[in-house]
Amino acid sequence: MPGQFDPPSGTRDFLAAEVERREHAFAVIRSVFSRYGFEPLQTPAFERLDVLLGKYGEEGDKLVFKILRRGEHEASGEADLALRYDHTVPLARVAAAYGSQLPAPYKRYALGPVWRADRPGKDRYREFTQCDLDTLGSASLLADAEALSAQHDVYAELGLPAFTILLNSRRVLKGLLESFSVPPEIGAGVLISLDKLDKLAPAEVAGELAGRGLAPDQADELVAALTGADCADRLRIALSKSEEGTAGLDEVDTVMALLAGQIPAGRLVFTPRMVRGLSYYTGPIWEVTAPGVAGSIGSGGRYDHLIQQLGGPDLPATGSSIGIERMLPLLPGGEAAPGRLDVAVTVMRGDLAAQSFAFAAAARSAGLRASVYLGSSAKLGRQLKWASDSAARWCLIYGEQEHAAGTVTVRDMTSGEQVQVPAAGVRAYFGTVSHGAS
Amino acid sequence: MPGQFDPPSGTRDFLAAEVERREHAFAVIRSVFSRYGFEPLQTPAFERLDVLLGKYGEEGDKLVFKILRRGEHEASGEADLALRYDHTVPLARVAAAYGSQLPAPYKRYALGPVWRADRPGKDRYREFTQCDLDTLGSASLLADAEALSAQHDVYAELGLPAFTILLNSRRVLKGLLESFSVPPEIGAGVLISLDKLDKLAPAEVAGELAGRGLAPDQADELVAALTGADCADRLRIALSKSEEGTAGLDEVDTVMALLAGQIPAGRLVFTPRMVRGLSYYTGPIWEVTAPGVAGSIGSGGRYDHLIQQLGGPDLPATGSSIGIERMLPLLPGGEAAPGRLDVAVTVMRGDLAAQSFAFAAAARSAGLRASVYLGSSAKLGRQLKWASDSAARWCLIYGEQEHAAGTVTVRDMTSGEQVQVPAAGVRAYFGTVSHGAS
Repeated sequence: MPGQFDPPSGTRDFLAAEVERREHAFAVIRSVFSRYGFEPLQTPAFERLDVLLGKYGEEGDKLVFKILRRGEHEASGEADLALRYDHTVPLARVAAAYGSQLPAPYKRYALGPVWRADRPGKDRYREFTQCDLDTLGSASLLADAEALSAQHDVYAELGLPAFTILLNSRRVLKGLLESFSVPPEIGAGVLISLDKLDKLAPAEVAGELAGRGLAPDQADELVAALTGADCADRLRIALSKSEEGTAGLDEVDTVMALLAGQIPAGRLVFTPRMVRGLSYYTGPIWEVTAPGVAGSIGSGGRYDHLIQQLGGPDLPATGSSIGIERMLPLLPGGEAAPGRLDVAVTVMRGDLAAQSFAFAAAARSAGLRASVYLGSSAKLGRQLKWASDSAARWCLIYGEQEHAAGTVTVRDMTSGEQVQVPAAGVRAYFGTVSHGAS
Repeated sequence: MPGQFDPPSGTRDFLAAEVERREHAFAVIRSVFSRYGFEPLQTPAFERLDVLLGKYGEEGDKLVFKILRRGEHEASGEADLALRYDHTVPLARVAAAYGSQLPAPYKRYALGPVWRADRPGKDRYREFTQCDLDTLGSASLLADAEALSAQHDVYAELGLPAFTILLNSRRVLKGLLESFSVPPEIGAGVLISLDKLDKLAPAEVAGELAGRGLAPDQADELVAALTGADCADRLRIALSKSEEGTAGLDEVDTVMALLAGQIPAGRLVFTPRMVRGLSYYTGPIWEVTAPGVAGSIGSGGRYDHLIQQLGGPDLPATGSSIGIERMLPLLPGGEAAPGRLDVAVTVMRGDLAAQSFAFAAAARSAGLRASVYLGSSAKLGRQLKWASDSAARWCLIYGEQEHAAGTVTVRDMTSGEQVQVPAAGVRAYFGTVSHGAS
């Protein structure tokens, strides 16, 4: 039961530890993409309704969060704006708006929330972060390989323990349908059934294909071409009969060859039965899988006509997308979360508070996180408990004795050891110990 | 005239240079706040409508972007969600939702967009970034001083060339009204008029006060107490007659004393006539001004009852807010924007592309931004032009000759000098030169 103070259904509050975990991953992503020469783009959270609607099909349109008109128009119950559903439609708009001001090719990444009014579920949110990397204006397979390589490097640099990139080409699939004489009108359905070969037994998929109108022999052959020990060789022979199939195999082989030096062997696998669900892909397609995760944690492919279909200029395009919410739980935990503070500074008496402030400032100027005690107790025990609750590494105690001696007591909160440091020497002291400790 | 590809009215697209400029400022803010022991909080872009409405007064409610209900309820024209208007109402909700899971006091910052359906204008956007720093659960003036100090450090670390922090206390203002026997029912109006002393002549303000119902003598005295050479001394005498006034002066003096060592003299100024517009403040208040900017670039103050009024627990609170959009234009430009790439790698022939990919990867592993040429021309001139357009520092040329010799030509794009580097030595080469150059 959601409580009255919970965030809206399908959304989340991120407290400190979670923000830090996410921001760390985002920083790695930005750094990798930047090293590939991709530049950031940030568009508004909402777009005009007419920019968004009709771009995602009927099902997609239903998932768009629409914003009510304002002022005197509010009563109309009409919407004029909508929260962005992805980063691709805004990219098409930006490409149309800025045109020649953008570099050619335009290599950009977008990292930020998108909103979909989906039914919330496990790992399915209504507000979630999406990360897209796209190259507009290059028809070269090098651009596909580069997008794939950058995506690979993100997972590698984040320390994702195990993942595989399945590579295929839309043209391989088109050639496959051609060389098995699948009637064009059932082609899309056949691909949907073939995509299930990772979940269903070959015989089941063959049965499904027969149900879609393929002759039983034809269905068995098609399934056999995609499964079994020597399927790759048989598939190459089958595809050689088709011009599209030959071109598709060339695409796959070229991308594999370009990345042979960058991606460890076995991590990038030609997978002819892999069908990306979306029909707008025109060339190489890929999907990233990880053990224990149903579906993919990332994907990508070439989509040469989509930008124009979305209202942008006619530019060839390719790109990859990282499923942030599915990927984050797979990442290694790393070191234990640091405490909230490095240095906790007591305030034993109001007239000593300015000096406590100065100690905290000195610790900060050494790059440490430091705060004075903000509570109402003048008891050292209470203040030490606060320092301990904050998981501070050191507590600076500055009471009457220290004030008289011109010193401050530095207590190591782990060992309990205490040393006296001259009041004027706090900055220097932390400059030494924090350097040694980090 | 907005074009069909422009972002919605009052919103902006941020292309690479602008994103980088903004993110740099945000990184400084996060770093400073973190060093003060404030932790990040991220809440969803939207809240349930009932959480937001009625919290900002009638005028504020009109500025809330409301989200239409979905599915079968869409036709009702009703809203059930709304984009967040600020970070304070979400903070109150979070304080209520997580209660004792949060540290006490809860020191958090929120940095992110908020949305208001205001009439767009110069520096006034419908989507803008707001940065709030707040401490919940401390009644101590140390918390006010800390919030003010952290805000100061952000401006200082960002290199804001000139700014002044005006400090006052709501209790000083309350005491002022008491000691000048201003009838309580016109108190709020009198404060609004006094707030204009930075724009209007004293006589004009006195006239306005008389219009509000003060006796002309009383109005003149009140204005004189806040202006002129020895006004601070006269004001102290006047306030000493009032309990609130005395307490307010103590607050101001305590905060000034706590920060005397942190904030350069003259940058923090007791300004009795400074009235923060919002009535919820209960203690110290401050406003940050900068030359050439009408109004403030930041503000803050204690608001001990607001969190409860907003639906949260009854906690004393204080905090500061940075007006990101007004502050950013004031920041020094810094170094010229770097080019899009450090290393541009030619692709002279398809069968050499994998080696070009490897060179780019080698440069990246040295921390440089590197990309291969993604265009369709095999002409060196065209590829060098692309390297130049990308403002790359180096271009790696790998053609037939280099291939045969097992080398790559490294061209310095500024000087035009070229050196031959062994193909296997690119990583080591850039490890040296990029280290020396940065």
